[in-house]
Amino acid sequence: MILDIINKKRLGKELSYGELYEIFNGYLDGDVADYQMSALLMAICINGMTDEEVFALTKIFIDSGDVLEFSDIPGIKVDKHSTGGIGDKTTLVIVPIVAACGGTVIKMSGRGLGYTGGTIDKLESIPGYRIDLSDEDIEEQVHKIGCVVTGQTADLVPMDKAIYALRGVTSTVSSIPLIASSIMSKKIAGGADKIIIDIKVGNGALLTNKEDANKLSRLMKEIGKFYEKEVRTVISDMNVPLGRCVGNALEVLEAIDVLKGKEVDNNLYDLCIELATNLVSMALEISDKEAEKKVINSLKDGSAYKKFLELVKYQKGDVSKLRISNKEYKLKSNIDGTISNINALKIGKLAFNLGAGKKEMDDRISYGVGVKMEKLVGEKVKKGDVLATIYYNKCLPEIKIDDIYKID
Amino acid sequence: MILDIINKKRLGKELSYGELYEIFNGYLDGDVADYQMSALLMAICINGMTDEEVFALTKIFIDSGDVLEFSDIPGIKVDKHSTGGIGDKTTLVIVPIVAACGGTVIKMSGRGLGYTGGTIDKLESIPGYRIDLSDEDIEEQVHKIGCVVTGQTADLVPMDKAIYALRGVTSTVSSIPLIASSIMSKKIAGGADKIIIDIKVGNGALLTNKEDANKLSRLMKEIGKFYEKEVRTVISDMNVPLGRCVGNALEVLEAIDVLKGKEVDNNLYDLCIELATNLVSMALEISDKEAEKKVINSLKDGSAYKKFLELVKYQKGDVSKLRISNKEYKLKSNIDGTISNINALKIGKLAFNLGAGKKEMDDRISYGVGVKMEKLVGEKVKKGDVLATIYYNKCLPEIKIDDIYKID
Repeated sequence: MILDIINKKRLGKELSYGELYEIFNGYLDGDVADYQMSALLMAICINGMTDEEVFALTKIFIDSGDVLEFSDIPGIKVDKHSTGGIGDKTTLVIVPIVAACGGTVIKMSGRGLGYTGGTIDKLESIPGYRIDLSDEDIEEQVHKIGCVVTGQTADLVPMDKAIYALRGVTSTVSSIPLIASSIMSKKIAGGADKIIIDIKVGNGALLTNKEDANKLSRLMKEIGKFYEKEVRTVISDMNVPLGRCVGNALEVLEAIDVLKGKEVDNNLYDLCIELATNLVSMALEISDKEAEKKVINSLKDGSAYKKFLELVKYQKGDVSKLRISNKEYKLKSNIDGTISNINALKIGKLAFNLGAGKKEMDDRISYGVGVKMEKLVGEKVKKGDVLATIYYNKCLPEIKIDDIYKID
Repeated sequence: MILDIINKKRLGKELSYGELYEIFNGYLDGDVADYQMSALLMAICINGMTDEEVFALTKIFIDSGDVLEFSDIPGIKVDKHSTGGIGDKTTLVIVPIVAACGGTVIKMSGRGLGYTGGTIDKLESIPGYRIDLSDEDIEEQVHKIGCVVTGQTADLVPMDKAIYALRGVTSTVSSIPLIASSIMSKKIAGGADKIIIDIKVGNGALLTNKEDANKLSRLMKEIGKFYEKEVRTVISDMNVPLGRCVGNALEVLEAIDVLKGKEVDNNLYDLCIELATNLVSMALEISDKEAEKKVINSLKDGSAYKKFLELVKYQKGDVSKLRISNKEYKLKSNIDGTISNINALKIGKLAFNLGAGKKEMDDRISYGVGVKMEKLVGEKVKKGDVLATIYYNKCLPEIKIDDIYKID
């Protein structure tokens, strides 16, 4: 029977809810072997899935674990997800903005298993910051300050954990239907009413072309419709890193700069405004134009930054104790010209080699290391000008400047 | 690196010899996991392989074990392989024919894991028949009588054993490139100079359409060219069973009938003549027309049957001790009409349920059970006429006559 199901997908046919249920739950129960599930996943990767199959799979994923509901908290709960990119610290900026504008955000973030840490790792670079809040803690905090950013509280979507681990070791990661059901099942089980998804496209992202991003966008909106949740998407560039810092503590400091209104002229600021505007519009049920006005105002009048400090303090963090490595290396330009590209993937790998990310789940992150780009794309440089400051730990890894920078 | 190789095939790209070597030998060495190999096999099933990839894979398969060479035996050694079908006892008929015509046949056959036994299982239904000859035994016997049918003597293509087992449990069996490299690696490692492959097509076979059979035929001939071995193919129908008996001892008795010239008017006889003609033509390097004359003559003058008795006796078998189950059930027609079809797959399943085949490798076969079709396709029957005799063991399984027979 299991073999018939695998064979059906191998031939490119549509699987029923019952068939998907049998094989995926069989896998979680240990009745379907790893090698059978990986054969099915590969067939899905190559032959795709219909929308109905994706809806069914998303339901099977959601039903595999707990489903949160914060019905005691009044108002529309909004949530945001990013498919992951280099230097992405937008959560740290937009959660306080949305709360400052009067929205309600319960954000459960994850750790990273990639070139840099996830949002939770970044927040842990703030000494004392608690990421292990209980459901009661969350409700109390949201009542008081309107937002929370914490780790996952319950056993959400255990099926996704199992399948994700297998996908990672079988080259079956970049499948649109599998990505869509993985992300959407977690967001829906997390109890959000309305969701924005930031889909990254570029050499530093899971998806490398716009066409795939459009497909993923459409599919996630369809899943949203199926579950009667408003889903919006933003497709953003990940060929160059987001903002000027890549690391953990470094990224927290950069988020603070944006909240303080110090960084207003780069891709990070633009994306934060776009995401926050969508969230505020959904949370308060107002137009995007009105929402954008509120968002920009919250930065100008300092209320977003104040909300950030309130959030960190409420979760026992102490921003004044944030530390950056005191070992610095100034990466200098070897020619005159204009920076036409900074390779996101290469910057990510550099940060990873510095110790900003984890190779294995139980590796330790060096919070204080990373890269600060002193010059961004479009800027003119002279030979000898500092392109970037590298904050390192014990020893400096080899850096091939021409791999990272394109200067014409 | 392994993930890059899997991903490349997932994207439908061509793998190099080095990449195939790394992942397949890695699997045999235990460095590549089952779930990674099954993902690759599924990608191969769906995206296919180029001829160059198939040549490389065949070489990797051959090199994984021993390669036999019977250079002390003079003349051209011919071999025959069938992709497997219901009631296929052709080996038992054609090996003695070829030897009677002066050819040299060293046939290493396998056991069955399907609806009925393999050739080796069928021969073991002859009490005393030895299937464990040493290389020395084989050489001596071939010098004396020109032919041998035994089990595999050496550790031929261990890679195929490992991959075949995984394919069976992951719905990755019916892939033309994988079937071609599996069959051809075993034939080449077995030391044959010239080979004929009987490709079965129909509901009782691995391949169900002619187009796939043509693809497999072309590919196996190309592999033959690459290894400078003459390869011929015959594409034969497997929608109806071959001959009138399906079982083990029953099939030996039917083969004897053909050799004695008692069965000359059915698909079994025709296929035996075709295969034997090709083998004699290749072995003696004569035209097909001359070869066919010799083949038919060897049946008419009794030399082929005499060679069969010689073969069985040389390998210590005693044909007079062959036993058929004494529990018979006469399956009778419930209408008047003409038999327009006898479903090969359903007859195979019936024989299997009677105990003629193995579900698991260590099951025991009941040699004396099986089905003898008293009427064949095209024959007129009246209500109450015996369609088939069922030889059973302990109890008779349920038989749905309309599933098996189509009588118009």
